[in-house]
Amino acid sequence: MDSRPIGIFDSGLGGLSAVKELLDIVPNENIVYFGDTGRVPYGTKSKSTILKYARQDEAFLLEKDVKMVIAACGTVSSVAFDTGKDLGVPFLGVVKPACAAAVLATKNKKIGVIGTATTVSSGSYKKAIQSIDKDIEVYAKACSMFVSLVEEGWVDENDEITIKTAERYLKPLKEKGVDTLILGCTHFPLISAIIGKVMGENVTLISSGGACAKQAAKYLKDNNMLNESEQEPKREFFVSDTPDGFLKTAKLFLNTDSNLNAKQIKIENYGKQEN
Amino acid sequence: MDSRPIGIFDSGLGGLSAVKELLDIVPNENIVYFGDTGRVPYGTKSKSTILKYARQDEAFLLEKDVKMVIAACGTVSSVAFDTGKDLGVPFLGVVKPACAAAVLATKNKKIGVIGTATTVSSGSYKKAIQSIDKDIEVYAKACSMFVSLVEEGWVDENDEITIKTAERYLKPLKEKGVDTLILGCTHFPLISAIIGKVMGENVTLISSGGACAKQAAKYLKDNNMLNESEQEPKREFFVSDTPDGFLKTAKLFLNTDSNLNAKQIKIENYGKQEN
Repeated sequence: MDSRPIGIFDSGLGGLSAVKELLDIVPNENIVYFGDTGRVPYGTKSKSTILKYARQDEAFLLEKDVKMVIAACGTVSSVAFDTGKDLGVPFLGVVKPACAAAVLATKNKKIGVIGTATTVSSGSYKKAIQSIDKDIEVYAKACSMFVSLVEEGWVDENDEITIKTAERYLKPLKEKGVDTLILGCTHFPLISAIIGKVMGENVTLISSGGACAKQAAKYLKDNNMLNESEQEPKREFFVSDTPDGFLKTAKLFLNTDSNLNAKQIKIENYGKQEN
Repeated sequence: MDSRPIGIFDSGLGGLSAVKELLDIVPNENIVYFGDTGRVPYGTKSKSTILKYARQDEAFLLEKDVKMVIAACGTVSSVAFDTGKDLGVPFLGVVKPACAAAVLATKNKKIGVIGTATTVSSGSYKKAIQSIDKDIEVYAKACSMFVSLVEEGWVDENDEITIKTAERYLKPLKEKGVDTLILGCTHFPLISAIIGKVMGENVTLISSGGACAKQAAKYLKDNNMLNESEQEPKREFFVSDTPDGFLKTAKLFLNTDSNLNAKQIKIENYGKQEN
């Protein structure tokens, strides 16, 4: 057993959707979450900037003595996955678990992927899917506005603007006839009802955060690293902007009424200063 | 005369709309522009984070030996205006010039203001307007999605989603009967055709960047600080993310076909490191 916390980071608070899916499976785990709310979003920024930010995020979590680091961020998992290779603890992103789940789910070998602009232009999901089965066709589409819509709270399944935005973005994927769609950004599960309705009931949606949570839980179990302590598990939340709006958003993403709070840190002071 | 450049900064590239309006009036000026594309947007972040970023942005421009600093950013002008007071050169934001223009324009003494969430919650426009005329009623509305819509390029005046978003946001301001509307964010002029159509032709739109540009030009003229050199004026652009997408966006905002390029700098290395 290993009672150290699991470290999870994201560009902002979207990664809390992965925390929720993780705690649904392994509720006894201690969690340290970092959301880079002072520099959010990552998905419209360049690869080199995201690499630098990811290294700092990982360095912060390592100082918290975590037993595993999860990049609950489609963008980091896509363009900065290598930053996690030398951390000295297991590192998981959201791309590979989601691709494995999608390959199992597809019947017609046509998979769609939606994510931020940077995630889509990286081609990460396509590469990971075709490394499992090179005959699968992959169609990716950047859906940057979904992040803003979720952050604005326009997530009601009857929201006309969110529905019309989904229809515009998803039209080319529907036309390609995909039977499986990866939600390659941890914000997107909050509008999965709309995405599902637009795509139609025959399309399987794969939450990248959910797939990652399942793989993380399996890894800990297989390696005898689950927390078996009988102490009340701790959940610590850190952000790089002031934590003013944290409680409201965290309740939305974690679907809880618990009192939650977050501490602000100076993320630019962590990690190596590179040129 | 003073041939030093005018320094202009914004959270991202929206401030280029103010650069365009400035160069329309004083085309002979040298310009140094900084867009904090590595940390954009500011408008959803906290006051203390914006203060820190604004000080760094100003420090960078001062190193470029500018004769004036313009915060072409509704958010900085609203919550971090004081950071410009001790720069040793004149400092202009977009709030006061826009308010002065709106007070002149209104006939029914009802002014609307739209901007980012942080701008609106600061109450800056209301304070500035009522310091000129306390009888004017001011109605402010955060329109965060407008920034994303502009950055996604959904700016065509017939774009259904942008129109519906504008209708949703602007409905309460229409109901209040404002006859003047301040576009309190430098992204918004790019969708002024839609905003104008939704508000109706009897509502006067005031571009905060445009009002600021007029005041800057007047200040330079009144103080004998215009550039009278006959050399070709220089326009230098700096960003904090990689400049990959700069050209395309700059052409959109500056409405030019010139070849433009931007250099990347490490903005976190400028200014005092505070705790």
